[in-house]
Amino acid sequence: MLQTKKLILVVNDDGYLAQGIEVLAQAMKPLGDVIVVAPDDARSGSSCSISSTLPIHLRTISEEPGLKIIACSGTPADCVKLALEYACPRQPDMVVSGINHGDNASVSLHYSGTMGAALEACMKGLPAIGFSLRTHSQHCNFQPYLETVVRISKQVLEHGLPQDVCLNVNFPEVETLQGSRVCRMARGRWVAEWQPAQHPHGADFYWLAGQFSNLEPEAEDTDMWALDHGYASIVPIRLDMTSYETLSTLNFS
Amino acid sequence: MLQTKKLILVVNDDGYLAQGIEVLAQAMKPLGDVIVVAPDDARSGSSCSISSTLPIHLRTISEEPGLKIIACSGTPADCVKLALEYACPRQPDMVVSGINHGDNASVSLHYSGTMGAALEACMKGLPAIGFSLRTHSQHCNFQPYLETVVRISKQVLEHGLPQDVCLNVNFPEVETLQGSRVCRMARGRWVAEWQPAQHPHGADFYWLAGQFSNLEPEAEDTDMWALDHGYASIVPIRLDMTSYETLSTLNFS
Repeated sequence: MLQTKKLILVVNDDGYLAQGIEVLAQAMKPLGDVIVVAPDDARSGSSCSISSTLPIHLRTISEEPGLKIIACSGTPADCVKLALEYACPRQPDMVVSGINHGDNASVSLHYSGTMGAALEACMKGLPAIGFSLRTHSQHCNFQPYLETVVRISKQVLEHGLPQDVCLNVNFPEVETLQGSRVCRMARGRWVAEWQPAQHPHGADFYWLAGQFSNLEPEAEDTDMWALDHGYASIVPIRLDMTSYETLSTLNFS
Repeated sequence: MLQTKKLILVVNDDGYLAQGIEVLAQAMKPLGDVIVVAPDDARSGSSCSISSTLPIHLRTISEEPGLKIIACSGTPADCVKLALEYACPRQPDMVVSGINHGDNASVSLHYSGTMGAALEACMKGLPAIGFSLRTHSQHCNFQPYLETVVRISKQVLEHGLPQDVCLNVNFPEVETLQGSRVCRMARGRWVAEWQPAQHPHGADFYWLAGQFSNLEPEAEDTDMWALDHGYASIVPIRLDMTSYETLSTLNFS
């Protein structure tokens, strides 16, 4: 009986040259054929944005048995969209995004291009996972997380995910993980976000920086708590953002 | 007793010159002082993206009693962030976004810069509403919707919204609305999204286009159904994207 090898699409928002995506692509190779379609440059903070006014192009960077790498001029969500229609030889069995340099826990999810790509794959009905590491470095030791990355990916590849749900997986920067916890998004807020500066010619401008403030640091069932205590956090994320809890309480007639 | 006038921040993703934001700003004037902080050009499909690598600047376009207009070089979410820290004379009582040229119902919410700005305001703890019109035109008759826009805005200004919830309000292009419906996001999917083309020098590229496919056209409790039947749709949107329904069913240990 002919068994087609699984196909895994790997994307990110840091660009195809980032260390995190190279590590992720290599980790996926034992699980199936791997195709990387990633931005041609860093696109942090892309959220689920799409390119509505510029045409997008693809460029094949390298191809070897079981691993093809393609650079895309668009956003992370564009990468997924274009990969599915033009780059993948068949429908992928799973889409993994990352490993992002920087965490995407709590509300940072909303800004994340890593998770934008995962959400896009989820919108297309594919099992999707975003992986992110809480670090400020572009050169990290990803070794402590690979066993968990592969374990979660294998399980999703075999059993899928609930309809319209993808995973937001974050790692703390530690030598040894305490384990992993399925949890919820913490309530949080970015504060003091801008650093004013002056153009050499005198004009004011502002750099986005900011501090994250956890609004419920004691809540043990949150992703931030897991990360703060050395655990990987695994948050199931739903496409449907309707607030069902408040639906019946609202009346605007 | 001194009563401070309400302050309303108006944003969008079509840019400060768009007809939709001018109409919205004028509609808000009777409700309080209005400050517009909007992109200096069209930024459709921005989602909740932020500018992490470029500095942002603000430019005051005009100022009259009760209405100040500022152009911002960043994304819609940047506009909200920068408005709150540097442009607003005091904390706004409400943030309204739009009126977008094009609907943001169903999963289009995820790509929407209009809703990205509303989500950003919601993350900052402010009552926020995104307004969008299902149209392909840059020059529309917004008159049929203004009464509803003002009614919803007034109510939110007076009573606020539930914690971590903002509103996604969409209008069908009609001469007379059938009314408005509080509803949920429809399940939907964009398909056949790319239109291939050739650069004059021969290289392949792709324009993002696509068709929206409603996966549950018969569901009367959805935003797409409301729009398809001449109603304004009002969907409460929550910041917390955790899939609580599946939390206890997932196990990756």
